[in-house]
Amino acid sequence: MTRPQAGMTYRDAGVNIDATSDAVGRIAERARAAFGATPIGGAGGPAGEIGHFGGMYRLPSGPDRLLVASADGVGTKLKLAFLLGGDAHERMGRDLVNHCVNDILTLGARPLFFLDYFSTGVFEREAFDGFVAGLVASCQENGLALIGGETAEMPGMYAPGEYDAAGFIVGEVAPDRVIDGSGVRAGDVLLGLPSGGLQTNGFSLARRIAGLTGDLDNDRARLAQPLPGDEAQTIGAALLAGHASFRPTVAPLAEAEGTIVRGMVHVTGGGLIDNVPRILADELAAEIDPTSWVVPPVFTWLVLDEDVPFRERYRAFNMGIGFIVAVRPEDESTARVALPAAVPIGRVVARPSDHAEQVLGI
Amino acid sequence: MTRPQAGMTYRDAGVNIDATSDAVGRIAERARAAFGATPIGGAGGPAGEIGHFGGMYRLPSGPDRLLVASADGVGTKLKLAFLLGGDAHERMGRDLVNHCVNDILTLGARPLFFLDYFSTGVFEREAFDGFVAGLVASCQENGLALIGGETAEMPGMYAPGEYDAAGFIVGEVAPDRVIDGSGVRAGDVLLGLPSGGLQTNGFSLARRIAGLTGDLDNDRARLAQPLPGDEAQTIGAALLAGHASFRPTVAPLAEAEGTIVRGMVHVTGGGLIDNVPRILADELAAEIDPTSWVVPPVFTWLVLDEDVPFRERYRAFNMGIGFIVAVRPEDESTARVALPAAVPIGRVVARPSDHAEQVLGI
Repeated sequence: MTRPQAGMTYRDAGVNIDATSDAVGRIAERARAAFGATPIGGAGGPAGEIGHFGGMYRLPSGPDRLLVASADGVGTKLKLAFLLGGDAHERMGRDLVNHCVNDILTLGARPLFFLDYFSTGVFEREAFDGFVAGLVASCQENGLALIGGETAEMPGMYAPGEYDAAGFIVGEVAPDRVIDGSGVRAGDVLLGLPSGGLQTNGFSLARRIAGLTGDLDNDRARLAQPLPGDEAQTIGAALLAGHASFRPTVAPLAEAEGTIVRGMVHVTGGGLIDNVPRILADELAAEIDPTSWVVPPVFTWLVLDEDVPFRERYRAFNMGIGFIVAVRPEDESTARVALPAAVPIGRVVARPSDHAEQVLGI
Repeated sequence: MTRPQAGMTYRDAGVNIDATSDAVGRIAERARAAFGATPIGGAGGPAGEIGHFGGMYRLPSGPDRLLVASADGVGTKLKLAFLLGGDAHERMGRDLVNHCVNDILTLGARPLFFLDYFSTGVFEREAFDGFVAGLVASCQENGLALIGGETAEMPGMYAPGEYDAAGFIVGEVAPDRVIDGSGVRAGDVLLGLPSGGLQTNGFSLARRIAGLTGDLDNDRARLAQPLPGDEAQTIGAALLAGHASFRPTVAPLAEAEGTIVRGMVHVTGGGLIDNVPRILADELAAEIDPTSWVVPPVFTWLVLDEDVPFRERYRAFNMGIGFIVAVRPEDESTARVALPAAVPIGRVVARPSDHAEQVLGI
């Protein structure tokens, strides 16, 4: 049978399966090198060979457990990575993992494994390799295995040089050790941990305030300017500041037997205003003192430069508080020894009968 | 303290947190209605209240188990949904779940839970609601719980009316019941199950062959034309044909004690050419007989209209075979009773020493 070798191929349509396959193979190799894999008959951890249709993770026998899962992205912080290039792609991979780790940390869960979704118009190796380097490094730092993922080449869906990325994490916690905020009561102290920057939220507004127009020359020049209020760093560096994992700091306290932690908040999209209520029963509110912590210069510049309304600031941005731990007043000093960077930023109170809102003071 | 209420808000920057929050609330309600939730102290299944930073799933006590996870998208089939609108968004939700279910089915895993990632430029309720309706329906049909997800509004990342979507699934299988293809041997029969269409792969090429240019009027007119070779359906309907879940058909056979199934292949990106080798040891190959099944008219039209090279056809498209089950020759008749739609499409053979390729005959 003669097989015509002319005609249209998938590559003509803008999809390069070979390049993507090679890249996926490289991820697999890196993941194998970084995390190893137990035989399917072995102990707990990533299991089986690479190349199956699903990633495998062996969970050793034991009592009931809660699997805790979360899906997240890094939002339009990606647009900064497209502008800055280089190490910024690695930062995206790290931010994605850290965001997911923090989410399940709020429930007291220990991370087990991670998968990523990376979609782009035309596959570009530099960005992808940087992104994966960040994924792998941050997975290792947080003690979780990268067991799979999807790399999608979708011509016409993304502008040249752009991509979207999502992360998926699974962790576990014993059912009697889950911290879901149901133990939070009026009088509890809210300890805030510094975010060091925007983490991965508020970038659509921040980009507009920063005067990023989509014109490459203009945008790069803007990002290279010194940050008002802290001229030692550029606007670009300040905006790109990493989304930290709070696990190394918080887990020893939250996972201790008989922990004093009553509830935890990851300050993601919606800021303090939308996230703090997630650990508050209907009859409770949080009274936040906005003068209790030092607001990093990047936020001061962002909100003053465009006169962002006061309350909106705490909804669009984390304003310097990345993670919150709620403890009883009598446990505050113990908690602050374990969390030396933490600052008391407010208190849980009975919700005033005339207030619909659960976050007061900001 | 006076709080200025003028100035720039997040909504000015194109992000409508309220609309997204409402929509996410609706997902949560639907998921709760569809899947219920056991108390954290209860039996296995989705657990805990809605609104935490992570979805929870209770895994009852028991012996070692393998968790099997997969991340997937629906590729540029999404572009068809953008053109066709209406029910096509629901189709995307269903395809996403079914794609993930099939991936972990290949390892013998029973699905437990699912999370989605939905990202768009400007949130549009109709598309999102349709998409979620598809997610929920398909999760119910496949017996898995939708326990979380992420909805991202990313101004400037997507064209108006467009979105990207990823799915994440976790299932489980006993370590001694995993089917990873290591039992496949020369002589085994490959039984193919019909795909009924492109599933979710090959759309970048298909769109080009179909003459979709990005001009809305042209593209809609093209999709409304009758399909050459089967004028009872339109080109649009043929291309949009669903990605089926093979679980209802295959699971009873694959999950039976002492199953006769030696390996399974989900024919995804890379078609038969790239996916069949995933269950073949290095010294094996698959001899496929391309005349052994009826190729649906949509494929005949696609590959002949543009003279796609013969082998490329089986790499860009599934060509009518959506899932493959490998069994010993002596088990073929038993398997075909359990899988009445299956067709023997080829055989596993020793790899000829002069062949680098592991898929022969196509």
